[in-house]
Amino acid sequence: MKAVQLGKYHSAPELQDVADPKISGPLDVIVKIGGAGVCRTDLHIIEGQWEPKTGVELPYTLGHENAGWVVEVGSAVTNVAVGDAVILHPLVTCGLCRACRDGDDVHCLASKFPGVDTDGGYAEYLHTTARSAIKLDSTLQPVDVAALADAGLTAYHAVAKAARKLRPGDKALVIGAGGLGHIGVQVLRALSSVEMIVVDRNAAALALAAELGAEHTVLADGHQVEAIAELTGGAGAEAVIDFVGEGGALEDGVASLRRNGDYYVIGYGGTLNVPTIDIISAEINFIGNLVGSYNDLAELMVLAARGKVTLHTSSYPLAEFARALDDLDAGSVRGRAILVP
Amino acid sequence: MKAVQLGKYHSAPELQDVADPKISGPLDVIVKIGGAGVCRTDLHIIEGQWEPKTGVELPYTLGHENAGWVVEVGSAVTNVAVGDAVILHPLVTCGLCRACRDGDDVHCLASKFPGVDTDGGYAEYLHTTARSAIKLDSTLQPVDVAALADAGLTAYHAVAKAARKLRPGDKALVIGAGGLGHIGVQVLRALSSVEMIVVDRNAAALALAAELGAEHTVLADGHQVEAIAELTGGAGAEAVIDFVGEGGALEDGVASLRRNGDYYVIGYGGTLNVPTIDIISAEINFIGNLVGSYNDLAELMVLAARGKVTLHTSSYPLAEFARALDDLDAGSVRGRAILVP
Amino acid sequence: MKAVQLGKYHSAPELQDVADPKISGPLDVIVKIGGAGVCRTDLHIIEGQWEPKTGVELPYTLGHENAGWVVEVGSAVTNVAVGDAVILHPLVTCGLCRACRDGDDVHCLASKFPGVDTDGGYAEYLHTTARSAIKLDSTLQPVDVAALADAGLTAYHAVAKAARKLRPGDKALVIGAGGLGHIGVQVLRALSSVEMIVVDRNAAALALAAELGAEHTVLADGHQVEAIAELTGGAGAEAVIDFVGEGGALEDGVASLRRNGDYYVIGYGGTLNVPTIDIISAEINFIGNLVGSYNDLAELMVLAARGKVTLHTSSYPLAEFARALDDLDAGSVRGRAILVP
Amino acid sequence: MKAVQLGKYHSAPELQDVADPKISGPLDVIVKIGGAGVCRTDLHIIEGQWEPKTGVELPYTLGHENAGWVVEVGSAVTNVAVGDAVILHPLVTCGLCRACRDGDDVHCLASKFPGVDTDGGYAEYLHTTARSAIKLDSTLQPVDVAALADAGLTAYHAVAKAARKLRPGDKALVIGAGGLGHIGVQVLRALSSVEMIVVDRNAAALALAAELGAEHTVLADGHQVEAIAELTGGAGAEAVIDFVGEGGALEDGVASLRRNGDYYVIGYGGTLNVPTIDIISAEINFIGNLVGSYNDLAELMVLAARGKVTLHTSSYPLAEFARALDDLDAGSVRGRAILVP
Repeated sequence: MKAVQLGKYHSAPELQDVADPKISGPLDVIVKIGGAGVCRTDLHIIEGQWEPKTGVELPYTLGHENAGWVVEVGSAVTNVAVGDAVILHPLVTCGLCRACRDGDDVHCLASKFPGVDTDGGYAEYLHTTARSAIKLDSTLQPVDVAALADAGLTAYHAVAKAARKLRPGDKALVIGAGGLGHIGVQVLRALSSVEMIVVDRNAAALALAAELGAEHTVLADGHQVEAIAELTGGAGAEAVIDFVGEGGALEDGVASLRRNGDYYVIGYGGTLNVPTIDIISAEINFIGNLVGSYNDLAELMVLAARGKVTLHTSSYPLAEFARALDDLDAGSVRGRAILVP
Repeated sequence: MKAVQLGKYHSAPELQDVADPKISGPLDVIVKIGGAGVCRTDLHIIEGQWEPKTGVELPYTLGHENAGWVVEVGSAVTNVAVGDAVILHPLVTCGLCRACRDGDDVHCLASKFPGVDTDGGYAEYLHTTARSAIKLDSTLQPVDVAALADAGLTAYHAVAKAARKLRPGDKALVIGAGGLGHIGVQVLRALSSVEMIVVDRNAAALALAAELGAEHTVLADGHQVEAIAELTGGAGAEAVIDFVGEGGALEDGVASLRRNGDYYVIGYGGTLNVPTIDIISAEINFIGNLVGSYNDLAELMVLAARGKVTLHTSSYPLAEFARALDDLDAGSVRGRAILVP
Repeated sequence: MKAVQLGKYHSAPELQDVADPKISGPLDVIVKIGGAGVCRTDLHIIEGQWEPKTGVELPYTLGHENAGWVVEVGSAVTNVAVGDAVILHPLVTCGLCRACRDGDDVHCLASKFPGVDTDGGYAEYLHTTARSAIKLDSTLQPVDVAALADAGLTAYHAVAKAARKLRPGDKALVIGAGGLGHIGVQVLRALSSVEMIVVDRNAAALALAAELGAEHTVLADGHQVEAIAELTGGAGAEAVIDFVGEGGALEDGVASLRRNGDYYVIGYGGTLNVPTIDIISAEINFIGNLVGSYNDLAELMVLAARGKVTLHTSSYPLAEFARALDDLDAGSVRGRAILVP
Repeated sequence: MKAVQLGKYHSAPELQDVADPKISGPLDVIVKIGGAGVCRTDLHIIEGQWEPKTGVELPYTLGHENAGWVVEVGSAVTNVAVGDAVILHPLVTCGLCRACRDGDDVHCLASKFPGVDTDGGYAEYLHTTARSAIKLDSTLQPVDVAALADAGLTAYHAVAKAARKLRPGDKALVIGAGGLGHIGVQVLRALSSVEMIVVDRNAAALALAAELGAEHTVLADGHQVEAIAELTGGAGAEAVIDFVGEGGALEDGVASLRRNGDYYVIGYGGTLNVPTIDIISAEINFIGNLVGSYNDLAELMVLAARGKVTLHTSSYPLAEFARALDDLDAGSVRGRAILVP
């Protein structure tokens, strides 16, 4: 089959002929790719940033946001069948460690990460297991939801966690209404009646956030902290949901958090720097968020099937992967770029 | 190998020569039995009470409370290794359904129940999977903990659920300090500082409960409701943990439950019969409890390894299974009967 | 002032001249009534059903669903001010007992219940305290929200509790879409993305439920259990929210509850009658619900201010209270009847 | 009466004759002081560090850890009576704001803090309200528990929060076994079966921690991170409970926190400095902790009454307050210093 493989760091990936993946264990699943999301992480992998973390042997196939159709299953697979349209949880987990046994897949002690530390979905077929495959509702197409597999899941996991604590009358500040953020806005709207304030540097992103249900939008023009203070009666928001995590977002967010409030860290890049006296005297919490569980992704697919979470995508044929990566690098993709074999 | 099989309902099981179990899948585990608990449910199976529920094909091997040593593992087993002493979760679960993915093993949509609907542990060897095997601490012997696999797990699951809500100053009423109940008393003592009241018909059981840490014991002599009312200042207990569930226990328990209290149903046999006006005007809850998860059993093994939960047992050689069943039926077993191959 | 007082059980209440209420303590609040809901409980009080429970001294003023404007406050009142439009929590609570200190107002050990055990709101003015008064958003009128003070609060409390556990993909069965039920449907829609099934005997109630956001409606025509089973793939609903609690609703609800599901008891009249083996083998829970807290009512007012919960009402001048009670008794009130002094 | 008042910042407080406090409202309570804890915060107040925060008008009476006997109550006080021995929650709260109505007293929007922003307990009598007074069990003396009112409450609040999430098999790292820390160790032992590791620079503090139930103690000698790593199998602890919060404790704590773990910030002084990529890639949480609620203090008194939490104290007559402050400053108090009028 055809696959886009990275042969050398700092070099362009190439379309290669590789062997078709094969079933080797009873929980194995082979998926014909219907769509593979092109993500900024792919650029970072090519640039070698992930080499020290994964030590993956080159060449290997990129692509960690995958959806498609099941074409073959091992003897013990019961949750999906040949012909099913599926989205794939980004991790292939062991199912045996304490974390897996608690439904906390992300902290599996022995997971694989296709597209990152083993062959991924920039290809015609992908080898995965039953533990990663979620059957799609008949109204959903793999190409439309592939990008929810990782970016969408991360937003869902954090926002659903926040929504479980928020009550009518609470205010939530969403920092960043871009790729992950605009999914977060939709999830928060679907799961709660909180009063939502969205802050972003980009007026178009704010317009989209308002359309998706945010009650208030604030342009990050240097006066955003004052604007947010005014919207929260000077007390701050019960929850800050930060999809940016760098470049002043953290300082703004901490300054906008209410006493006894929760700060959800999702975006990253910067450093959280808070005197402990501020943490205890306001009794605030900082909550880390990493991807999400298999069941989180299944829940997100329910919202997608009901049209409560939608995503703009631009399709590229698999052979034009280089153009997709270039467009992403140049910031010229409309929505998320999706490779279609 | 030798195995105690039930060949016909209403007939005595017999010791047979049967084929040794074999590894057929990569998650399979073969365990050499070190101890198999003899339980009242085994008597009920022999009497045919479970026939309509399980439809298990006869002959098959009894024994659903099992512990031993791993002698062979499939290629994908990572949580236990050959030579490990293990206790076995009573269910063999699929790992793929929504319940399994939430850590809620008991509600697996495709589980098997060795000793009940497939071959169990009254035998030299047992076929199970990695999803049921928990490695024992070096201080624990299979023969000593086997009976915790089902009875102990059920008590742990319910009591740990109750303990998570109880606060110092709350009172918990434990109904029944027999087989499950006396494990429940130990678990409640290990996990909380609640004030514990134990009621039973049997003075010896109450003496044991007091020794295990109950602050108050009440003999069920017809005046128990008044005695409990006095111990709770007339207001009732924040939690009732009912290991009996029949024969007046329910009426006593409901009468002893505080407003806004939780009634944990574990024992069964009787019928809960409460006017809805009483449920709403006191805003009380009735909480069902069924076995427990794999992680619940792992937690119970931690308590056992620290000596916080112990159990009296009487060993019988496997070949003397008939005597063990007779003793159980006659009520003459001291503690729990354990078959040792 | 004028007040509608009950002078004798089994006799019609009468409009009387009574002394105006006065501030006597620093937390006292006097409210000029803007609307007082007329409720079936008022009929039951007149019929003497509540006499043994409350022992209230006659004559006294009816009316337990009250809203209006603050006209006088005690020296320590800080949460409302003269001129504020307010809704009143149905209980006047002590603020000192353990329940009050946990925010669990309903289980206050020393509460008063205006309209039930002390003078209520069928009058020009009402004596209450700061602990019962919630300032209304400027978009809300007392006459429009008065009936949310008790009926609406009860629905909100139960449904919000259920919503905190429900996830996308779960199904909730709402039994009864009448007075409380149709508020419950609106609250459930505002707080979750659960798939909602509503069952009722009345086709018009079902039409309203569908309009308010229920995905499925089922007419209780004798085949409702089968219809619900079909809608839940034979597995039942993760939550049953029962606003009826009598006359077959309980049997239908229990039969429609999924393994590991939660049954919220709100309506009453019947008797819950379930074998304990069914409670434990399906591991189901029965959750009582009684009114709601002060903060619950504040949250409901947020939903009301956003138009997410609305209520049909029919106003009657205070002097025409007898017509309102007769209309209620005859079932001819459109929506909720509200007395307006 | 006699009272120790601060007349000028940076000057020694002085024993003065002041007017006896009087009942002015129905919830007021006058307490004859049985013991008032002398705390490092008192030194900071004298040094003027709190002046910009509280703006309290001088002179005023110090003392924020108070217990004694009720000598007079207002007309609406129902929870304590004249003659009762009581401990006082450090805040006098309004009971009307949203936080108070949720049982979250510490975030009351209108609280007073006797000894800090109004007259405190270095005196013969103290003016407080029913909302701060907790009746003591007959086995407890005010002088013995006074220091639990603030220091003990803070430790209880944080540790009880941690204990509700911890399971048998989890490990908890307690940083600091001094004043607050050794109370935290006792609370953690009373409320959970977690495996406890305590780290401190002081060998005597570690010896005490071991006596109070810690399974492991680690001397902070520069190799503590390695020692903790070894005790946690290299994975870190599920919870870090940090009573230090400065001077390397934070770095050690973060390095010893397990993936998906919770870091409870209690001590302060240093600055939390963590790259957001570390927060998200390990999905860790930082949880602020500030004093505790009225009900938290009531729960702590239950543990104290059962002998599960004890405290070393050294009594000083009220007139010898200067010696107590000097001893505290010099580090020569054995346990906590308590002033006794």
